[in-house]
Parts: sequence; C-alpha cells; structure tokens
Amino acid sequence: MSFLFKKKLRPVGLPPGSLENFNNKHEDIHLSVIEYSEDQFIEKHDISIETCLEHLDTPTMTWVEVSGVPNASTVAAIGKHFNFHPLILEDILTTGQRSKLDLFQDQVFIIVRFLQYNEKTNELQDQQASIVFGPNYLISFFECREDIFKPIKDRLRQGGSRIRKEGADYLAYALLDTIVDYYLVLLEKVDATLDSLEEELSHFPKPTTLHKIQHTKRVMVMLRKAIWPMRDVINRFMHLEGSIISPTTLIYIRDIYDHTVQTIDIIEGFRDVVSGMLDIYLSNINIRTNDIMKVLTIVSTIFVPLTFICSIYGMNFDYMPELRFHWGYPIVLIMMLSIAIAMLFFFRRKRWI
Amino acid sequence: MSFLFKKKLRPVGLPPGSLENFNNKHEDIHLSVIEYSEDQFIEKHDISIETCLEHLDTPTMTWVEVSGVPNASTVAAIGKHFNFHPLILEDILTTGQRSKLDLFQDQVFIIVRFLQYNEKTNELQDQQASIVFGPNYLISFFECREDIFKPIKDRLRQGGSRIRKEGADYLAYALLDTIVDYYLVLLEKVDATLDSLEEELSHFPKPTTLHKIQHTKRVMVMLRKAIWPMRDVINRFMHLEGSIISPTTLIYIRDIYDHTVQTIDIIEGFRDVVSGMLDIYLSNINIRTNDIMKVLTIVSTIFVPLTFICSIYGMNFDYMPELRFHWGYPIVLIMMLSIAIAMLFFFRRKRWI
Amino acid sequence: MSFLFKKKLRPVGLPPGSLENFNNKHEDIHLSVIEYSEDQFIEKHDISIETCLEHLDTPTMTWVEVSGVPNASTVAAIGKHFNFHPLILEDILTTGQRSKLDLFQDQVFIIVRFLQYNEKTNELQDQQASIVFGPNYLISFFECREDIFKPIKDRLRQGGSRIRKEGADYLAYALLDTIVDYYLVLLEKVDATLDSLEEELSHFPKPTTLHKIQHTKRVMVMLRKAIWPMRDVINRFMHLEGSIISPTTLIYIRDIYDHTVQTIDIIEGFRDVVSGMLDIYLSNINIRTNDIMKVLTIVSTIFVPLTFICSIYGMNFDYMPELRFHWGYPIVLIMMLSIAIAMLFFFRRKRWI
Amino acid sequence: MSFLFKKKLRPVGLPPGSLENFNNKHEDIHLSVIEYSEDQFIEKHDISIETCLEHLDTPTMTWVEVSGVPNASTVAAIGKHFNFHPLILEDILTTGQRSKLDLFQDQVFIIVRFLQYNEKTNELQDQQASIVFGPNYLISFFECREDIFKPIKDRLRQGGSRIRKEGADYLAYALLDTIVDYYLVLLEKVDATLDSLEEELSHFPKPTTLHKIQHTKRVMVMLRKAIWPMRDVINRFMHLEGSIISPTTLIYIRDIYDHTVQTIDIIEGFRDVVSGMLDIYLSNINIRTNDIMKVLTIVSTIFVPLTFICSIYGMNFDYMPELRFHWGYPIVLIMMLSIAIAMLFFFRRKRWI
Amino acid sequence: MSFLFKKKLRPVGLPPGSLENFNNKHEDIHLSVIEYSEDQFIEKHDISIETCLEHLDTPTMTWVEVSGVPNASTVAAIGKHFNFHPLILEDILTTGQRSKLDLFQDQVFIIVRFLQYNEKTNELQDQQASIVFGPNYLISFFECREDIFKPIKDRLRQGGSRIRKEGADYLAYALLDTIVDYYLVLLEKVDATLDSLEEELSHFPKPTTLHKIQHTKRVMVMLRKAIWPMRDVINRFMHLEGSIISPTTLIYIRDIYDHTVQTIDIIEGFRDVVSGMLDIYLSNINIRTNDIMKVLTIVSTIFVPLTFICSIYGMNFDYMPELRFHWGYPIVLIMMLSIAIAMLFFFRRKRWI
Repeated sequence: MSFLFKKKLRPVGLPPGSLENFNNKHEDIHLSVIEYSEDQFIEKHDISIETCLEHLDTPTMTWVEVSGVPNASTVAAIGKHFNFHPLILEDILTTGQRSKLDLFQDQVFIIVRFLQYNEKTNELQDQQASIVFGPNYLISFFECREDIFKPIKDRLRQGGSRIRKEGADYLAYALLDTIVDYYLVLLEKVDATLDSLEEELSHFPKPTTLHKIQHTKRVMVMLRKAIWPMRDVINRFMHLEGSIISPTTLIYIRDIYDHTVQTIDIIEGFRDVVSGMLDIYLSNINIRTNDIMKVLTIVSTIFVPLTFICSIYGMNFDYMPELRFHWGYPIVLIMMLSIAIAMLFFFRRKRWI
Repeated sequence: MSFLFKKKLRPVGLPPGSLENFNNKHEDIHLSVIEYSEDQFIEKHDISIETCLEHLDTPTMTWVEVSGVPNASTVAAIGKHFNFHPLILEDILTTGQRSKLDLFQDQVFIIVRFLQYNEKTNELQDQQASIVFGPNYLISFFECREDIFKPIKDRLRQGGSRIRKEGADYLAYALLDTIVDYYLVLLEKVDATLDSLEEELSHFPKPTTLHKIQHTKRVMVMLRKAIWPMRDVINRFMHLEGSIISPTTLIYIRDIYDHTVQTIDIIEGFRDVVSGMLDIYLSNINIRTNDIMKVLTIVSTIFVPLTFICSIYGMNFDYMPELRFHWGYPIVLIMMLSIAIAMLFFFRRKRWI
Repeated sequence: MSFLFKKKLRPVGLPPGSLENFNNKHEDIHLSVIEYSEDQFIEKHDISIETCLEHLDTPTMTWVEVSGVPNASTVAAIGKHFNFHPLILEDILTTGQRSKLDLFQDQVFIIVRFLQYNEKTNELQDQQASIVFGPNYLISFFECREDIFKPIKDRLRQGGSRIRKEGADYLAYALLDTIVDYYLVLLEKVDATLDSLEEELSHFPKPTTLHKIQHTKRVMVMLRKAIWPMRDVINRFMHLEGSIISPTTLIYIRDIYDHTVQTIDIIEGFRDVVSGMLDIYLSNINIRTNDIMKVLTIVSTIFVPLTFICSIYGMNFDYMPELRFHWGYPIVLIMMLSIAIAMLFFFRRKRWI
Repeated sequence: MSFLFKKKLRPVGLPPGSLENFNNKHEDIHLSVIEYSEDQFIEKHDISIETCLEHLDTPTMTWVEVSGVPNASTVAAIGKHFNFHPLILEDILTTGQRSKLDLFQDQVFIIVRFLQYNEKTNELQDQQASIVFGPNYLISFFECREDIFKPIKDRLRQGGSRIRKEGADYLAYALLDTIVDYYLVLLEKVDATLDSLEEELSHFPKPTTLHKIQHTKRVMVMLRKAIWPMRDVINRFMHLEGSIISPTTLIYIRDIYDHTVQTIDIIEGFRDVVSGMLDIYLSNINIRTNDIMKVLTIVSTIFVPLTFICSIYGMNFDYMPELRFHWGYPIVLIMMLSIAIAMLFFFRRKRWI
Repeated sequence: MSFLFKKKLRPVGLPPGSLENFNNKHEDIHLSVIEYSEDQFIEKHDISIETCLEHLDTPTMTWVEVSGVPNASTVAAIGKHFNFHPLILEDILTTGQRSKLDLFQDQVFIIVRFLQYNEKTNELQDQQASIVFGPNYLISFFECREDIFKPIKDRLRQGGSRIRKEGADYLAYALLDTIVDYYLVLLEKVDATLDSLEEELSHFPKPTTLHKIQHTKRVMVMLRKAIWPMRDVINRFMHLEGSIISPTTLIYIRDIYDHTVQTIDIIEGFRDVVSGMLDIYLSNINIRTNDIMKVLTIVSTIFVPLTFICSIYGMNFDYMPELRFHWGYPIVLIMMLSIAIAMLFFFRRKRWI
C-alpha cells in the first residue's frame, strides 16, 4: 500500500531536527527568486543560496522558490538565516508528511500534499509542498519539477495586478489556491473514470472491472487522505491570531475553504457511487450464475426424464409386450414430446424462459 | 457522474474574481425589476441594465430578477454599482457551486441549489440561484428560465399583503422558502418512485429493477448533496449578526430551517428504505437460484437412479437370468416406481416440494 | 413510502400562515374544556368555540382539548384570541410535521408525533399532537379521536391530586409523558414481533419471513423518526429560559427525557437484532442451497459412473469378450457396488453425509 | 428480545411517583445496617425498617443495604424519612431502568445495571442496583440476593482501613467499583467464548456456530447497553458540583471512569472480531458450495461424454460398420480413457484437483 | 481474543492501591540510573533501590529506568519515597492498562502501550511503559527487556546535546517519541504484509488468504486500540496546566501529536484497503463458482440431448423404421453434430466460452 505509506522513516530515537540522514546532493534542486512591490519586479533563476539570502534581506516582498527534492544543506542555510525551528527543517526534508500548519512567532509554516495525475504511468503522484512565510518573504519548497505556479508568476510579472500590491499572506493564498484547483482537476479525471466504469458495468462486466473499481476506490482513499487535513490547514489559516493575515486576504482564504469543502462533498458522493458499483457488480455475478443454472436445469429437466423413458425400452427383458406393438415406437415418441412440451409450459409459468 | 460534478472549472491559477473566461452573450438573459413599498408597486420586464440601476437607487425596496445563465458584463455592471466583492461576481458566474452564505459589510450573498424534476427527460435539473441583498434591494440571479417565483410576485402585486410591508430580508426568505418547497415536491416524486419500485420488487423483480434502485439512490445522493449545505446556509442566515434580519422575519427563517431539517430526515429514511430494497433484491436472486436448484435436484435425483436401473437391464451379457424371468419387466417397473415414491417422500420431508 | 412522507404539501409559494387551502369542515372536530384550580373543577364537552374562549379568559388554569383533525376556522378563532403567530396556526393545521418546540413570547408551542399500533389494520398510526400553553391555559390539538388522555383527566377530577395544584407546564408535562409512555407500549409490541420472528427464523424460515423482517425494520425507522426529534423537543423544553417552567416541574421533565433516551437505546438495540436476523436469514438460504447441492452431487456422483459402466456393456460391438463370460454380469454388479460404497466413504470423509 | 426490553411498564397515564401497582410482599427483602466511623463499627442483619431508621439518625456514617426485589412499603418508609423525591421512589421500584445519576439537593441518586453471568442457565442476569447517599448515609437497593459486596464489608470490619475513615462518597465509589469489576469478569467470559468459537470456525463450522456467534453478539449488545450509560453516570459523578465528593475520592472515581472506558474499548474490539467471524462463516459456506460444485462438475464432465459414446454404440441401427470391426471395442475403450485423462488434465490446469 | 484482553484482573472488591496480589520476585527486574546536567553525566546499571533513591535526592536531573516486569516491593519503595498516589502504584503493576495520563500535584503519570513486532513468533507484543516525572526526576517502568531507549541514552552521554540542557518534560517527550516511532515501524510491516496479500489475492487466492486478511485486520484492531488512547494522552500532555511543560518542549510534543494523528490516518486507510480485499476475496469465490457452473452446464447441455437421441435408437421396439435405413446411422451422427455445434454457438453468443 505504498500509496498510503509514503513517509520516509527517520531512524527511531534520533533527536528531533537532526538533518544528518537526509539527502545532501545539490544537483537536483533549483532556486529562483522573485522580488516585487507595486512598482518594482526582479526575477532570477537557478541562483545560488547566497544570492537568495541577499534578496530576502530587502524590505520589499520576496518569494524564494526551491523546486526539486530539497537537500539538507540548502534548507539548513535558509533556516539559519531566518531562525527556523529545527522541527520546520526536519518537516521540510521529510517527504510524505500529513498536511499541517504551524505558527512559530511571526512565521507561518504550511505543509500540504499536492496530488497530480501522471498520464504516462496512469498513477497519482503525491508530492509535498512546504511554504514558510513571514511579513515580507515567502519561501516555497516544492518536490515536483514542473512549474505549476507559472500562472501566478505571470500575474506577478504583470504590473498593476492585485497580487503585486498584497503581501506574503496573499501570495501564500495564491499558492494554496492553485494546489486546491489541481484537486478539482483530479476529481474531473475520477469523474470520467467512473463514467466509463459505469458504461462497462452496464454492458459487459469483466473480472478486470472489479480491479478497476478497487483502483478508483483507492484513488479516492488517497484524495480523501490528502484533502481532509487540507481543510484543517486552511481552517487554521483562516483563524490565525494576530495581524498575520490581512482582512482582505481573509475573504479569499474563506473562498479556498469553500472549495475544499466542496471537494470533500464530491468525494463523499463518489464513494457512494463506487460502493453502488460494487453492489451492481456482485449482483451481476449472482444474476449470471442464476442464468447459467436456468439453462442447465431446463436442459436436464427436459432430457433426463426422456432419456429414462428410452432406457426403459432399451432393456433386454424377454417379455416386454410394448416392444412388440406395432404403434409402440410412435406412441412413445408422442409421449416424450408431450412431456417435453409440458416441461416447457412449466418453465414458462416460472418465467424461466 | 456528471450529476455530482457540475462545477465549471476555472483554469488553474487564474486570479480570483477574474471574469474573462465566462459567458458573455447577452441574448440568453432577461432582467425585470419590481419596486414596491406598502403603497407603491412598479413592475417592468425585459429592461436594460441601466433602467435597473435607476430603480435600485430609489429609497423604496427594489427587487431585480436576472433570469437565464448570467453573463459577465451584466453581473459586472450590477456588481460595480453596488461595490460587489470580486469573489461574489465570480461565484454568481460559476455555476455548480456549493450552497453558501457570505456577509460582506451590509450585503448578504446567498448561493443555493435549486433542484427540479424534468418530466420530459426523466432527470433532475440542478440549477443555481444566487441572491444578493442589502437594506433596500435584492438582486436574484436564477439559471432557470421558468418563472418559479410567480406566486411571490402575485403576492407583491396584491396591495396590503405582508410581503409589501417587509424589507429585503423577508423577500429573501420568501425566495428561499419557495426553493425549499420545491425540495418537498421532489421528495413526493421520489416517494412515488419508491412505492412503485417496492411493488415491482415484491411481484416480479427484473434485472432493470436493480438499475432503477440505483438510479433512485443516485437521485437521493444528489438531494442530500443539495440539502445538507442548504441547512447550513439557513442556519447562518438565522444567526446573522447585526440588524440585517428583523426579529419578525427571523421566526419565518426558523420555519424554513425546520422544513429543511424535515427534508433531511425524510431523505435519511428513504436511504434506509432503498438499502432494504437492495437486500430484498439480492436475497430474491438467491431464493430464485435456490428454487432452480431444487427443481434440478428433484428431477435428477429421481431419474438418474431409475435410468441406472434401466441401463443395467440394457446390458448385453449372455448370462443375465433376470432377463429371462417372465415377471422381470413388471417387477423392475414396480421397483422403479417405489424408488420414485420414496424419493418424493424424502423431498417432502425436506420441504422441497 | 407513505409512512415516511405524510406531510400535507402546501402549494409552493403561498404566503406563510395562509389558512385557505386547509380543511374547513366543522363536523369532525370536538372541543372540550376543563377549568381547574386546587379547589375548583369544571368540565364541559362538545362545546362551541365561544364557550371555550370564555373559560380561557378566567384567571384559573384552563385546558381546552380539540380532538379530531383540526379545521382552519376553529384554529383561527382560538389563534386570534391568543394572538397566535400565523406560523403556529399553519403548523397546527399541517399534519405530518416533524416534532418541534417553539417559544413565542410567553407562549410555548409544541408539536409531537403520537404513534399508536392499530390492531385491526396491523399498522402503525402516526398522528400529530399540538400543544400551545401560556401562564394559565393549555390548548391541545389531537388528531386522534380516541381519548388517550383519560387517566390525566381522572387525576384532574380527583381533588387534592398534585396535578390540580400545578400550572400549565405540569399539564404539558403530563400530556407528553402519556405520549412517551405509548412509545414504550409500542416497543413492547415490536419486542414480541421480534421474538416470534426469531422463533420463525430458527425453525422454518419462509420467503415471507424476509418481508416480515423488512416490515419490522420499517416500523423501527418510523419509531426512530418520531423519537429522535422528540428527544430534542424535550431537551429544549428542559432548557426553556425564563420562568415558564417551575423548578418542581423541571425534575419531571428530566424524567421524560430519561425515558426518551431509554426508548432510543432500546430501538438502537433492536436495529442490531434485526440486522443480525437478516444475516441469519441470508446465510440460511446459502446453507439450504448448499444442502440441496449436496444431495444432487451425492446422487449424481454415485449413479453417473455406474450408468456409464452399464452403458459400456450395453454397446452392440460384435466382439466384446466380457459379454460372453459366464460370471461377467455378477462381476460387473459387484464392481458397481464397490464403486458406490467407495463413493459413500468419500462423502462420509468429506462430512457430506 | 426480552434481554433488551426488561423495563416493567407502568400503566400509561399514571401520576409520576405513584407506588400503587408495585410489589408489596415483605418476605423477599432483607435489610442490614452497618454503622461505622474510624473507631466504631456496628453491623446488624435482617432487621426491621424501624431499626434501620434509628441508625440513620446518628451522626456517624451509616450504610443500609436492602437486598432482594424492593417492595413499595419499605422504599416508601425510607423515602419518607429522608424526603426522597417521588421520582426516586418510582425509579427504585421500576426494575429495568437505564443507568442514571440524579442530584436532589444534597442527595445523590444513582441507578446502575449489574450484569452477572449465570453459569447454570448459561445466561446473563441483568439486575438493578440503586444507591442513594447523602452526607452521612448511604442506602443501597440491590435486586440480587448474592452478597457481591462482601469484600467491601470485610474492609469495613477491619479497623484502620481507608474506607473506615472516608464518607458516603467513598463508599458509593467502592460499590460502583465492585460493579464495574464484574463487567471485566464478564468480558473475560466473552473472551473465552470468542476463543472457542474461533477454534470451532477454523476447524469444523456447524450451523449451530452461527447461532453461537449471534448469541455472543447479543451478549455484547447487552453489555454495551449497560456500560455506555454507566460511563455517563460516572462522568456525572466526577463532575458533581458542590462539596458532595471530596477531592481524594475524586481521584478514585476517575479511576473507575478509566476502567469503564477500557471496558468500552474492549467491547468495541470484540464487535470487530465477531463481525470478522460472520465474514469467515459466510465465506466458509461459499467455499464449501464451491467444493461440492467442483466434485459434481468433475464427475459429470468426465462421465457424461463417455456415456454418450457408449450410447452411440448402443444404438440398434442395422448398418453401423464400427460394430463389426474386430478391434472396435478396444479402440472405443482407449478413446474413452484418453478423453477421461484429457479432462483430468484440464481440471488440473484449472487447479480444481 | 487474548490480544484484546490482556488486563490482569484484580480480584473483585479489593481496596484500590492494594499491592498484595502482585508479582514479588526480585530477579526479573533491573534498575539503572542516569544523572545528568549540562556539564555532568553519571550512569550506573543494575543497582539497588537504595542507590537509586540517593541519586533521586540530588537537585540535578535524574532518570531511573526500571526494566522488566515491575515487582510490588520495588515500586512500593520508589513510590514511598516520592509520595506516589496508591492508584499510581497499582496502575504501574497492573499490566494491560489503557494508555492514560494523570496529574497528581506536580507529578505527571503516563501509561502507554508499546507495540513491537516479534519476528520469531510472527506476533505483536503489547507491552506497557509507565513514566512518572516531576521537576527534576523521571522514573520509567518498561516491561520489555530490550533496550529500545539506547539512542536516547547515547544522546545523553554526548555532551552538548539539547537533551542534556532540558528537563524531565523533554526526556518524557523523547521517550514517547521513541514509542510512537515504533508504531510507524509497525505500520511499515503491515504495509508490506498488505502488499504481499494483494499479490496473493490477484494471482491465486487460497482459503488461507482469508485467514491472513483476518489476521492483518486483527493486528490493525490492536494498533488502533493502542494508538487512539495514545493520541488522547499526548493531547492531555500538550494541555497540562501550570509550568510542568516548558514552551520549547511544547512544540516538540505537538510534533509527536502530529505523528500520532498521521499514524491514525494511515491505519484508517489500511482498514479501507483490507475491507476492499475481503470484497475481492468473496467476489473471487463467486466468480470461481460461476466458472465451474459454466463448465458443468456446457458439458451437460451438449451431451445430455445427444445421449437422449442415442438412447432413442437404442430402444428395442420391433417396428422402428429408421433403424432399417441404410443411411440412418450417418444421418443421426450428423444430426448430433449439428446440435452440438448449435449449442456451442449459443454458448458463444452468451459469452460463456
């Protein structure tokens, strides 16, 4: 069940926040920085950690994007600069975490699961996105190399857009909104799968249909496992005390919350549909067994008595007067025909044919 | 499962409140305005957006009804006049939303699902109704072209009716009440369907019966999905802080709340009934298999041994003394008859016949 | 499913509290009045609405009992006198309501479901009882013509009884107590039915047994649907703010609350029992199919090979040396007997016989 | 389902607290009194109600134990002395009550269910224990004649034990603790039963196994029905306002609360186990049917075609050249053998044999 | 079900906190002491109880580890020294307790279940760990002899580690963290088992597969039973009032809380997977029965009518004209072949072959 159990296990008993046994390779990670204010916009890609930190020191809003599986040294360097709690460092590095939101002084730390459907492998990809933001900076860690936040960057590049005027809380909202939107895209996929499964069920169910149903069920277990904690995260986000979230942003966060609840609603509805499919599938098997039994019974019930009659007159007794009758044979044939017709009437009355 | 997933997807990553990718055709939308006070009543149909806004500026109570799928420009024009929050605009235009109630300053924004049974297509139609109201105005957006609020308009046209004396909160109540009443009409339909299904089940269940049961189950999933959030909406409506809801109206809203709870009660009861039907259906299949097996077993168990006896005396051994006996044949016949009778007694004792 | 959906539908869109489309026939309703204080007792039956109102104006405690399906004009007349809210009037006239308690100023309005087992029709009767009470009056509307409150009247007639000293709240308690007691009587009936069903199941289950189980299940759905809201009603009754309920009466209301909770407990226990019965029933069908299969298999497995052997020696080949042996026939018979015995041993070992 | 519905029904409509229709026989009830303080200990058995009341008037702690089914007059006499509320009197006399705790001024009234396994009848005995205690007295009513509180009395008899120093609250705790300990003893019994059932299931399940499983399930329904309200009682006991419970006793009550929760935990675990057993039982039946089918199919599928071949050469056509061949018979025999072997290979491949 | 019911029963009615009937053997218990501060570190093994107490009196932080099944005298000696409440003593000695946390003045008492997978016996070991800690001491009682806390000791031995600077609350956290980490190790085991079960199910399910599924289900019941109360314990730990937990430690405890919640999430996901497996298993049995039935029906339906035709011409009537025809035999053979082919077409159309 690797889809349920992705958490990378830390050796038991290690001190919390120890970064020793984590990935330390630099090559698979890319840093980019976007510094912006209402009038200003700077964007740099594939930069070094030091350049990042320079931008973070400016008073304007800075977004550092770390894409790829985060390595211990980069996270530690950033963490040291901002005084991250050791547990934040550990959580960012441990992939497979449950979505959560923690508040350390004026830093908000968010972990969410990002689910994406991989068309090639026909499987769900479950990736971790970590966001740390303070008054004028936001650092995002995102396992996946694909640039899913491109639309947000486009909005940032465009002068005069709302997002340029708002702070880190609004940027965090925009990132979460994108991730929740991907859930809805996934639901559309599941929806299409369920439609085709239903088609299959009502026309010609095969043994593989059951496996497909079970697979869809599993995808939904995974979705639920990702979305329920997501709801809690956004709920906590909405209720963060202090001045971290501005009132205008709050309305937008309530909007993602509504989307999350709707997603949960739809998943729960899908679960009902899938369990209904299982019922149909199982009753289909029963109906087919029933059908097969009917054919067997009709054939046997008609021919077994007839064969018996024949076998009577196949006996070799010396004295069997019927065998000598001239009309014996046609009479027996007619008798057998009558029995067969009577049987057919009986089955008709029982609605078997 | 298009019945569960109707939400029109916004492209991922778009800024909230962007109206670009929405319907912009003017032809399929109609505006009408009703301005009323205790002594005064003005009603205009198929008017332009500008006429609407004129009426909305007067101090008397004004109801603007937008029927048909709302287009971006109309909604934007009204929204601009009343300073709608961008998210309200987006929500009105996005069909397939979850029912919800939001409060922006002194504006109450309500989205509810309106379910209607389409007799022709034999399907449920799930439409969105959006209501925005402030102190002396109410704007309703309603996807459906049918004039389901006609009785309310009749009451408004009639001088001296209560509704003429009350404000926007009471009008909002009247609209919601109508929508909840339609749920009860739907339940009556489901009720009738269940009755006929039960008839079918107890007389002659067919494989299509299962599909009908599943269809009814799905209608109920849809109803639940519409009504549960409705309850929350009305609950929030009841508990709106401030002076938005007058105490006299509050009593009426509590009344719709009671109706909603009763609707939920009935649906939950229906669910029990439907799952009981599935049990009956499945056990009916089992009972029928059992029945078929009995017939097969009775016929086989009687005739197989008899045929065996016949086949003994059908053997061609040179030395089989019985074949030479004069009474051999009748004795064998009697023997076979006795075996058949014994078998029948055995089945009788087992209560198979 | 008329048992779940009894609510008389108001035409959609009508103003709340409109009494037009309700029953208006006078003949099927009876009014009686009991006026009492510690020293005084007046009882009148089949009186006119005006006489009622006279008694209601006195400062002593007055109980007006309206039995039979309430008609619009009577309810309107009483309602006008006491300033009933239009929604109270509508609720009293709409049969099939969910149990509820509403407080309008100093008037408490209670609707509860009264369930009674009709021995003749073998069905549950679900009737509505409405109670409105204020400081010194109580008006009860009761659909059923049977005088189920006779014991309370007897206690009232008897001078010196507690009920004579207490006010309207205590009388309301007494009425509710009687209604809850009837639930317990019903549970006793269900209990007896379940006992006989269990007897039937363990001895000789018939296809009708399933229908009986389903019927009992449905009775329980109905009971649950009546009792759960009842609990809420009594809970709200217990927590009515203000001086409506005297502390001494409160203890008694807590007592009915305990009874209601116990009733719910027992029903939930019954549900477990009924679902256990379904399991037994279905596994019984499976066991019987198994049994039938065994008989068929034993008979076939013994006689089919034997018949095959016979049919070998029934072939008409010119050169079949065995047919010429003198002991051929007895040897074949012994061989067949051995096979039959071997088969029986095999079945014995498999514990089929 | 008498195990779920033990409540003795009061005739409907009787005034609350009326003791008329209760047991009034004196013979089946025994009173004993224990009066104790740190230095003093008096114990008397089978005393009259008057002697009891004398001891209750002393300032030292007094425990009156009423064992046997309580009768109306004794309860009334004690109740009158202590000003019991009429509802307490009624509750003590009504056996089959739900566990509950009520507080009347400074009197605490507790009803709990005492479950005991009767080895002789192999059934659960469900008895009622009522406890009323005030500052310096405790009166216990216990349906059962067995002296289950003997260990407590032994501790009381022993000078210097903690229980001698504490008040009525501690004694009440000790009684409840004993009753909860009996639940654990019962769970041990259920545990042993489940173990033997599991043994039976995995070796040779019989139709009676299902009844045993259902019986165990029922015992657990009964246990749950007794323990869940027990938890509420102890929870309310823990949270009694005022100085009724001393802080030192509170710690002990929390301890029983923990035991009760653990008991509930274990029962819920048992429920999972039992429902797993039902699954195994039902799938066992299916597996056995499958097994029987296999034997039938193997035998039929081998012998039916062979018999057909024989019957071809059993036909009496004048011109059947094969019959005249010298090697016809052996060739047919070899052909039949090959078919049989082919069939066996087929079944082997299908893993049927 | 010994896995659900491990609690060692105290004889019913014994006073709370009595240690008489507990294990009193000294040999199977080992005491070790670690005394540490930021600069100092003392470690002693297999010491006497007196040495322990000496170390506990010092102002520096002291950890006493009692490994092995605790005996009454040791626990009593330590308990006396620290004024343990009698219930703590009893709880430490009673193995099989539910996880719990109690606060007595400034002492925190924690009981948790430690689950470990025993590779040799292929079974879960459920052991009890009790922790008592005050301002500058922590005493741990651990049933298991294995040194699972070795990594923590290593961190303590190492100067300058965080754990050396913190107090008893942090040490308690470290112990609980280790125990929760073991739960995750267990989940990995279950995960692997489920994977192999799934493999087995999809390839060749055997009757033992069901037992394996049931076994896994049981392991999960056990895990749930251990983890749910664990969550409550850690939750209570987080919310301990007063200055027992330092704010810095609190963050770490919240971290274990998150892990526990994640563990619960994964278990709930596993439950869904297991119940899906049961569905697949049962439907596999049905599909196989169906398959067997098909073979039987195809063979019977083809050969039974053919055998009937043969038996017609096997009759010995004197006058059967067909028998005399020269082409009679080939015609009958062709006829039979046509019937067989027609039957095969019929089965093909039904998709049985």
